[in-house]
Amino acid sequence: MATEFTQATLDELTRRLHAGETATIALEMGEMHPADAGEILSEIEEEDRLRILSQMSSDKLSEILMYLDEDVRAGVLDMFSGKEIAEDLVDNLDTDDAADLLSELPEAKKREVLSHLEDVELAKDLADLLTHQEGTAGALMATELVTVNPSWNVLRCVKEMRRQAEKQEHVHAIYVVDDHEVLLGSLSLKKLLTTSTRTIIEEVYDKKLRSVTSTTEDTEVVRIMKKYDLFVLPVVDDLGRLLGRITIDDVVDVIQEEADSNYQLLSGLSDEVASDDDLLASTKARLPWLLVGLVGGLLSSTVVSNNVGPLTHMPAMAFFMPLIAAMGGNVGVQSSSIVVQALANETLDDGLWQRIIKELGVGLFNGLICGLAIFLFGWIAGYALLFSLTVSLSLLVVIVFASLFGTAVPWLLNKRGVDPALATGPFITTTNDVLGLTIYFAIARLILGF
Amino acid sequence: MATEFTQATLDELTRRLHAGETATIALEMGEMHPADAGEILSEIEEEDRLRILSQMSSDKLSEILMYLDEDVRAGVLDMFSGKEIAEDLVDNLDTDDAADLLSELPEAKKREVLSHLEDVELAKDLADLLTHQEGTAGALMATELVTVNPSWNVLRCVKEMRRQAEKQEHVHAIYVVDDHEVLLGSLSLKKLLTTSTRTIIEEVYDKKLRSVTSTTEDTEVVRIMKKYDLFVLPVVDDLGRLLGRITIDDVVDVIQEEADSNYQLLSGLSDEVASDDDLLASTKARLPWLLVGLVGGLLSSTVVSNNVGPLTHMPAMAFFMPLIAAMGGNVGVQSSSIVVQALANETLDDGLWQRIIKELGVGLFNGLICGLAIFLFGWIAGYALLFSLTVSLSLLVVIVFASLFGTAVPWLLNKRGVDPALATGPFITTTNDVLGLTIYFAIARLILGF
Repeated sequence: MATEFTQATLDELTRRLHAGETATIALEMGEMHPADAGEILSEIEEEDRLRILSQMSSDKLSEILMYLDEDVRAGVLDMFSGKEIAEDLVDNLDTDDAADLLSELPEAKKREVLSHLEDVELAKDLADLLTHQEGTAGALMATELVTVNPSWNVLRCVKEMRRQAEKQEHVHAIYVVDDHEVLLGSLSLKKLLTTSTRTIIEEVYDKKLRSVTSTTEDTEVVRIMKKYDLFVLPVVDDLGRLLGRITIDDVVDVIQEEADSNYQLLSGLSDEVASDDDLLASTKARLPWLLVGLVGGLLSSTVVSNNVGPLTHMPAMAFFMPLIAAMGGNVGVQSSSIVVQALANETLDDGLWQRIIKELGVGLFNGLICGLAIFLFGWIAGYALLFSLTVSLSLLVVIVFASLFGTAVPWLLNKRGVDPALATGPFITTTNDVLGLTIYFAIARLILGF
Repeated sequence: MATEFTQATLDELTRRLHAGETATIALEMGEMHPADAGEILSEIEEEDRLRILSQMSSDKLSEILMYLDEDVRAGVLDMFSGKEIAEDLVDNLDTDDAADLLSELPEAKKREVLSHLEDVELAKDLADLLTHQEGTAGALMATELVTVNPSWNVLRCVKEMRRQAEKQEHVHAIYVVDDHEVLLGSLSLKKLLTTSTRTIIEEVYDKKLRSVTSTTEDTEVVRIMKKYDLFVLPVVDDLGRLLGRITIDDVVDVIQEEADSNYQLLSGLSDEVASDDDLLASTKARLPWLLVGLVGGLLSSTVVSNNVGPLTHMPAMAFFMPLIAAMGGNVGVQSSSIVVQALANETLDDGLWQRIIKELGVGLFNGLICGLAIFLFGWIAGYALLFSLTVSLSLLVVIVFASLFGTAVPWLLNKRGVDPALATGPFITTTNDVLGLTIYFAIARLILGF
């Protein structure tokens, strides 16, 4: 079962720490799964954390390191010199984790660590990994690989595998490469176990193998691994030479980040947000879109102030302003979200015009239902017939218009290479507020003849 | 590289079909990855699809089956009798896929398939799998397992593994169980390959193994597999007996569904939505929240109509109604999203009161900035000082209030076991529209003394 931590657990820990049991606690945490230890250590005071970690062996420390929150990890790494990080910590990490860790260090310290690595091959691998741009397959991959030659037999293959796998915790796949490191295919561990030891690899390996290049976008990596249910995906260079492999747990993080980012844009949060951010970080994440909303609100106020005439003649016009504005916003957000989600999940097969025509249908249908409902309400509430007509017709037009607008804007942004999720949430709501009110007053002038 | 399909590919396919090349096409598709064949077949006309599939061997057909869209698959299964499904299709599927397929069939046909399965063990497994509730570990697991006894040596273990693994495409883990099927631990394939054949399993297997019971919620399964970077997780019953295993590709689907569902609730879509839904399905997904918005709009209209006095005295009051309503909505959505996302990612450590106090701080800070901005605008635009004060103070109060409300409601829903994401999007926007206007007019009466 997974361990759950409560405030009580943390309080008890602090009490014991202050009673001088640091060494015992360090020992206990070394016995835990590093993910659990990392979770607890991320929650306690920095001073306490450093005291515990300084009592741990470098083995245990490097295991826990990657499970600490990123800002917490920075503080821990400050305790060590570049030489210590190179000799005690990096050596125990998988290459993808080691590269992530290095990329979090200041430039000078990063170079210091690389220069102190005894394993020259590893230093070269890490320096290469650091050159890959974020968001590409190269930045996701690790270089721990087990490779065999197609001319070997199974026995030699097992021997080689034992040697190569010695330092690797998990072997995800055995790759078959030619003498120039060009990827030919893969061999499953199961196959290796179930084939006679004299068999030549050439005869049994799987030649149908999907791979990506190091510059493939991470969203494409996600698409491929999800579609073909892959646990591990090899990465090659432009000549087809094997560089590394991406495992599905890294892809899970990419999926989560992508989903979180779209969710935040839809809710009007502009920065990565955590519930335990401080006041300044929280404000920085929220204020930008609030200011956009503020500007939109001022534009709305201008629209309304330009229509004092109708408002004075027919004060009831004001009653339905919030309704018109809100419905425009709601419909716009629905439509834009559908486009953004379809783009994210790669399920959008239609062109813009097909999509617009569909939206026109849905918008008209929903607009007619909502417009009719408001017309009935107006009739029952005893408003003038022409006034009820004005409100309900405005609602219909606003709903249709917001559907089309909410569909077209993210679609066009995406075409131009801009994140379509920018055009969801506050942006769409605000724009549709202003446009909705403009339509409302225009129709009122037309029907009621102010 | 992954294959991409364009409209042109599909048109060409249709042309060839109508030129009588069905058999050749069926052959070609059998050579593709079933995910690719499934994607193409889901896109073409039902008649064409059934023609191609009826030319395929049942092996190929069952491989492709699980890659078809769910509604498309229903049509394909209609072609076959329960007996045919049992004998030709189910037998070739993994048990988790087979159970999913059976659960999609009508009750009578499902029983027919089960009764025709020749493998009694498989029929029992499937019947068991079908009893697990959706959203639990039991519903996610497959029963394909390789199990060994701790008293065996490595040689016997490899032999047994070969026998058991014969029908399994991938071996994800080797589980060590006692004579009563109680799960003791696991043995990696790597260990098996790198240990001498005489070694007793007892001495080399990994006794630290995380497992869940079949009733564990799928979100908890996701949490555990993500936290501990697991590729496969065993499922046991209440006596600790091994029932099955969950692989990470199934968990990826759960993560995606959870994220999509939260995104849809935030954007006011109540049903699972696909961009290629027809008019009726699209309306069904969108109309409910639009009607909620409509009712909210009517409540707003009542609030405004109860304040005709202030509006007549000071028509400028109407100018800022949309701004006040919109800002309340924006802030409310931001705050509620943060809570929902923190709950989804299990990063919410605070209690409600801690959270409320934080929000109070952020709300006050943002409210002061926005309020000040509006006050300056009012001053520059030449509005009366007391009026500008009314608008800016209202904005401050509305922002603070919306922050608290947006935080508390999803938090309380979650405490009561209701999906907190229900209280994002249109619900929060609508509620804050009404409350914002109420606050606005109350403060106006107070300051301007209508």
